[in-house]
Amino acid sequence: MRILKMGQVGGGIGAFIGEIHRKAARMDGTIEVVAGAFDIVPARSLEMGKILGLNPKRVYTTYEEMIKGELALPKDERIDFVSVCTPNHTHYPIAKACMEAGFHVMCEKPMTLTLEEAIDLQQTVKKTKKVFGLMHGYTAFPMVKLARDMVWQGDLGKIRKVVVQYPQGWLFEKTKRENMQASWRVDPKTSGIAGCMGDIGTHAANIAEYVSGLKITEVLADLTKFVPGRLLDDDGNVLLHFEKGAKGVLHASQISPGEENNIAFWIYGEKRGLEWHEENPNYLHVYSQTAPEEVWKRGNAYVAAKSAAAGRATRTPGGHPEAFIEAFANNYMNFGDTIRAKLERRKPTELELDFPGIEAGVRGMKFIQAVVSSSAEGNVWKKI
Amino acid sequence: MRILKMGQVGGGIGAFIGEIHRKAARMDGTIEVVAGAFDIVPARSLEMGKILGLNPKRVYTTYEEMIKGELALPKDERIDFVSVCTPNHTHYPIAKACMEAGFHVMCEKPMTLTLEEAIDLQQTVKKTKKVFGLMHGYTAFPMVKLARDMVWQGDLGKIRKVVVQYPQGWLFEKTKRENMQASWRVDPKTSGIAGCMGDIGTHAANIAEYVSGLKITEVLADLTKFVPGRLLDDDGNVLLHFEKGAKGVLHASQISPGEENNIAFWIYGEKRGLEWHEENPNYLHVYSQTAPEEVWKRGNAYVAAKSAAAGRATRTPGGHPEAFIEAFANNYMNFGDTIRAKLERRKPTELELDFPGIEAGVRGMKFIQAVVSSSAEGNVWKKI
Amino acid sequence: MRILKMGQVGGGIGAFIGEIHRKAARMDGTIEVVAGAFDIVPARSLEMGKILGLNPKRVYTTYEEMIKGELALPKDERIDFVSVCTPNHTHYPIAKACMEAGFHVMCEKPMTLTLEEAIDLQQTVKKTKKVFGLMHGYTAFPMVKLARDMVWQGDLGKIRKVVVQYPQGWLFEKTKRENMQASWRVDPKTSGIAGCMGDIGTHAANIAEYVSGLKITEVLADLTKFVPGRLLDDDGNVLLHFEKGAKGVLHASQISPGEENNIAFWIYGEKRGLEWHEENPNYLHVYSQTAPEEVWKRGNAYVAAKSAAAGRATRTPGGHPEAFIEAFANNYMNFGDTIRAKLERRKPTELELDFPGIEAGVRGMKFIQAVVSSSAEGNVWKKI
Amino acid sequence: MRILKMGQVGGGIGAFIGEIHRKAARMDGTIEVVAGAFDIVPARSLEMGKILGLNPKRVYTTYEEMIKGELALPKDERIDFVSVCTPNHTHYPIAKACMEAGFHVMCEKPMTLTLEEAIDLQQTVKKTKKVFGLMHGYTAFPMVKLARDMVWQGDLGKIRKVVVQYPQGWLFEKTKRENMQASWRVDPKTSGIAGCMGDIGTHAANIAEYVSGLKITEVLADLTKFVPGRLLDDDGNVLLHFEKGAKGVLHASQISPGEENNIAFWIYGEKRGLEWHEENPNYLHVYSQTAPEEVWKRGNAYVAAKSAAAGRATRTPGGHPEAFIEAFANNYMNFGDTIRAKLERRKPTELELDFPGIEAGVRGMKFIQAVVSSSAEGNVWKKI
Repeated sequence: MRILKMGQVGGGIGAFIGEIHRKAARMDGTIEVVAGAFDIVPARSLEMGKILGLNPKRVYTTYEEMIKGELALPKDERIDFVSVCTPNHTHYPIAKACMEAGFHVMCEKPMTLTLEEAIDLQQTVKKTKKVFGLMHGYTAFPMVKLARDMVWQGDLGKIRKVVVQYPQGWLFEKTKRENMQASWRVDPKTSGIAGCMGDIGTHAANIAEYVSGLKITEVLADLTKFVPGRLLDDDGNVLLHFEKGAKGVLHASQISPGEENNIAFWIYGEKRGLEWHEENPNYLHVYSQTAPEEVWKRGNAYVAAKSAAAGRATRTPGGHPEAFIEAFANNYMNFGDTIRAKLERRKPTELELDFPGIEAGVRGMKFIQAVVSSSAEGNVWKKI
Repeated sequence: MRILKMGQVGGGIGAFIGEIHRKAARMDGTIEVVAGAFDIVPARSLEMGKILGLNPKRVYTTYEEMIKGELALPKDERIDFVSVCTPNHTHYPIAKACMEAGFHVMCEKPMTLTLEEAIDLQQTVKKTKKVFGLMHGYTAFPMVKLARDMVWQGDLGKIRKVVVQYPQGWLFEKTKRENMQASWRVDPKTSGIAGCMGDIGTHAANIAEYVSGLKITEVLADLTKFVPGRLLDDDGNVLLHFEKGAKGVLHASQISPGEENNIAFWIYGEKRGLEWHEENPNYLHVYSQTAPEEVWKRGNAYVAAKSAAAGRATRTPGGHPEAFIEAFANNYMNFGDTIRAKLERRKPTELELDFPGIEAGVRGMKFIQAVVSSSAEGNVWKKI
Repeated sequence: MRILKMGQVGGGIGAFIGEIHRKAARMDGTIEVVAGAFDIVPARSLEMGKILGLNPKRVYTTYEEMIKGELALPKDERIDFVSVCTPNHTHYPIAKACMEAGFHVMCEKPMTLTLEEAIDLQQTVKKTKKVFGLMHGYTAFPMVKLARDMVWQGDLGKIRKVVVQYPQGWLFEKTKRENMQASWRVDPKTSGIAGCMGDIGTHAANIAEYVSGLKITEVLADLTKFVPGRLLDDDGNVLLHFEKGAKGVLHASQISPGEENNIAFWIYGEKRGLEWHEENPNYLHVYSQTAPEEVWKRGNAYVAAKSAAAGRATRTPGGHPEAFIEAFANNYMNFGDTIRAKLERRKPTELELDFPGIEAGVRGMKFIQAVVSSSAEGNVWKKI
Repeated sequence: MRILKMGQVGGGIGAFIGEIHRKAARMDGTIEVVAGAFDIVPARSLEMGKILGLNPKRVYTTYEEMIKGELALPKDERIDFVSVCTPNHTHYPIAKACMEAGFHVMCEKPMTLTLEEAIDLQQTVKKTKKVFGLMHGYTAFPMVKLARDMVWQGDLGKIRKVVVQYPQGWLFEKTKRENMQASWRVDPKTSGIAGCMGDIGTHAANIAEYVSGLKITEVLADLTKFVPGRLLDDDGNVLLHFEKGAKGVLHASQISPGEENNIAFWIYGEKRGLEWHEENPNYLHVYSQTAPEEVWKRGNAYVAAKSAAAGRATRTPGGHPEAFIEAFANNYMNFGDTIRAKLERRKPTELELDFPGIEAGVRGMKFIQAVVSSSAEGNVWKKI
């Protein structure tokens, strides 16, 4: 298997998500970090490159420099793809420029600041034919893939109801030393028009659509800025209408003290129900009205037999839990295999294509725009 | 302590909730069932009376007969109160007639079929000065009382968000042999204008207000009849606005396969959060952003020290779980002690008065009317 | 159904277990408390009788008086059975005298102080042909009966391993105000030769035999007195050998801080495993190596279809939890129905006979003697 | 930070634990796999090297060749350490040879087949002054480190009781196609004198000593071969005596159907208790008799404030779970930093030295020998 060469933008010293991307990318030994523009302060970018053991010539300060520098290298030396791990407002220009320069892109979410940018980026993907991945990590957990496949296979019957939540507590108060992350996450200039809904509400909407196999057709949202002085929503409750008559509710919050990262879904069809929690992700609960609850456990043969995607996304046997970083690694795995398929001039398989991409990103922006305008206009239904 | 004499209307052979009322009423040995109109079929009512070891002269066929028969007895022999356990549409006339005849009333919920009836019954209570209890059992669990007292005492800070759910699955399909209960629960003539929202949504709204100490000021509801041919809602998602700026979401369902009786709440203030589940009711989870989760466990000294109401509602030491019937018994205990206070011509204490009554019933009917009209009028806010 | 008349010995004001017996006995309306010798202080016994609304003539000070007084009444007025809820060392003489006087007996555990007494009491039962119940409440939970029936029906295959635990924490230190219960529970004169093993180890051994359907054949015990000055074991770890080659381990403790009443078992056969916890008793976990875990939930049709005993021991539908008092009530139910069978001169059914009795009591005493001597003699195997 | 060069022995195509070692080693970007003797079949070893993108010259067939080949390279190119991931019986000669050749060693457990080998290897470590790590992954979970630090800091008071379990089910029957792993794990020639006790019992003993800070002084074991035809124990129950009067019980099993990898401990002191489960490893439960249970959650500031070791072993914020591979990575992190300290000629810190090494390996072999002889000699106490 060809080891892909990754360049990273962002992910400097102390950055949380950039380091997670690196850990995930290198987990399986199929991707190698060889270049990066880790920080706009040159010395800091170099320091990061040193920590990573990179050739200093391939440590850059800006993505523009990285593009230029890598293009100057012989084809088989230069990076295959760029991992974009910068603050939200820069995802779009970087991703666009990289694809236009001929590199595939794995982008941290949210994909863009506005729906216009998202649609433009979709054009870029179409035009450049590059592989574009968007890091919605939660749909990459094996048991979420199993859930989706159970729905696909009809185990639940027609879906009627979806409940999805994403409570966090870390923005429950405005601290004096509000950390760097928090500052750009609560600032409209860098975060876009939504706070909580952009940061985590999109994850909830994405997982609801992924598992149910149904698109959200319209939303009715009630967003709130609870913490005095906050510029963007830090909490929201949303009514959902899906295709084919399914209904649901989505609630997300960043002001719920003590909640860590409690994304979870419950989905009910005519025959069965499912429940999954990210904070204990190795288990999928399957409910029936006429039989005992079943707890499907990651890593067992019966899981792989039911869902090839879940089996493929599994690294350890049952009872040896896998978690957050492994989920990111699953996205890198499928994203990477899709790139390899391109390189090998073959069509990627369904399993390889099972990672979130440009469509998820566009839908995320549509979701954000819909919930923000729904709430602003007095809690009315807005089509997505 | 005076042992109170109870007469029951409803609760015939095979009835579920009537038998639960009896078990709860007699649990503490402070209430005695001495009379009843258990069934409108005389032989069946008599049979029930025989099972209960009652004097056949005090086994009646209708509540009118029971009122008449009991009033004919010497004052110290006749029943002190009536427990109303009949189908929904008869609660109102029975409760009203009993109070007007001089008897206190414990009524199964929902209290009435319409808001007009509820307001009229409120007048009856005011006029007759009788003690009126409404069996919302879920607020009678000790750990729910603890939760309320934590909120009262300011442990959570100002309340910001309330999530309350009540999923069930038992009406997930229309069976040919739809049982007796189901038939009147899904028929507007006997159930009122709401199905799921009337049967269980009111419990969810009631517990949200009880624990938060805040009234719901307006609702925006999306109710659905999922099962073909069903006449009333069997599922609903509701946005909530509370007093003092708190917001929330309530979702209830009777078509969620495998869900048993999963009423639960999460309530978040500026400082802390709480979580409680009826299906494992002896534990209250207390969350903070800066300290470990605390699991408060029923029956411990630290619970009674925090909440006198929880302490009073506790019969067994920690680890010897209490459950549903005991919760009902707690309402009978406080209802009974309030009657005793009347008999002793003293003012009942706050602890004795801690059971749901006419106000909860009126609010329940207002909630039902608001959610039904909100949904019918296109998902708009309706004041309660 | 004939309502049985119960007289109680013990259970005075402030007593914990005596009140639980009363709540359990009267829960179903099939047993009535009509007499009692609640306290050896006459005024206190009378006060308790008054609280219970008893005829003062039937409130006694000693069990001898109660026997005499009741025998003096016409046959159809006198008590049917005696509930013995006194401190441990008096169970034996009271139970014996009552049976010899012609009354059936429900006895709180442990049955006697010594094995000799237990064997003698067994003779008394045989001789008098009275119905004798011993209140091991934990085997009366519906899901424990379901577990037993699954084993009986061969679902687990041949049993190989049993793990049973019973940690508590309430004796973790010697307090100055050691409560009344604690004082007699830690004093050999009133508790017998074992402390923790007598008080709760016997429950663990009993439930292990009940569920596995296998007798413990020998034990190897390591008992400890951890708290300085304590006269009896407050902790113990025991290796178990069962019939048919099964093995196991039992550990019990009263010095494990924060443990409430955490009796639980895990039982594994050649094909499946089971897990149950008393502190969350409405669920039975069923394990297989080749299929998802199943969580069987009390109150569902599939439970009653699998286990008639579990179905019979169920009062509320799924999701409306039942708990400790209801388990006691199940023993009173089956004990009572066995008495009724006697009165009706018919053979009680298997389901009616499903309550712990004299055999469980004798085995409990043998277990205590075996573990105490095993530990005292240097941790050697002792046959039961 | 210097990126260390790792050579691996074992870990060929399809091997489970060797791949986990690689994933863990490379997770943080501070270790690079540059050489390996992955398989004794040359073509298969080469294929693995190709998958890993290695220079084919550094892909070997035997560890002897690897040692020779690497020593032939310039000092700054050759590997720093060897990761030994071969079947049990080869750990000892490989580890010994590597250290004698000047390489540090990270060794999969069990360290050796016999106690004699273990003691000899201890001499090798002493003599060669190499850094030796033994992959007991379970003590590397952050919440286990937190537990140990709570005990160290006296939060529990003097330790009285330790319960540790390790049930699995995967050897519950002898299958025709018993997999490669299973075959050598159940064969005395390759597994040593113990089966279940060697494979997983040692983990349980190791974690018990690590967290309690107390050595096991003697054991009394009851080991069983349940599956017909099996040559080594597949289940065992063990009484434990610790230093300073603490007592405990350890049970492990590989024939408990449906149990995945359920290592867990409960530890009780004079003041508090702790509970941790590997299958949901991000939570540590802290019990007190007089206060609510506390659930400490990985990734929070209060954890790092209590335990620097737990803080250091944390890669993601609270609610973004970490799991099995990350635990292995923690051992590689501390092992690597200790090597770096050597290279920098400074004394490693306590935090850097917090990984299992030769002492844990020797104790593991002593534990195995003691439990096997205890059981063989009729369940008698054996000193460790």
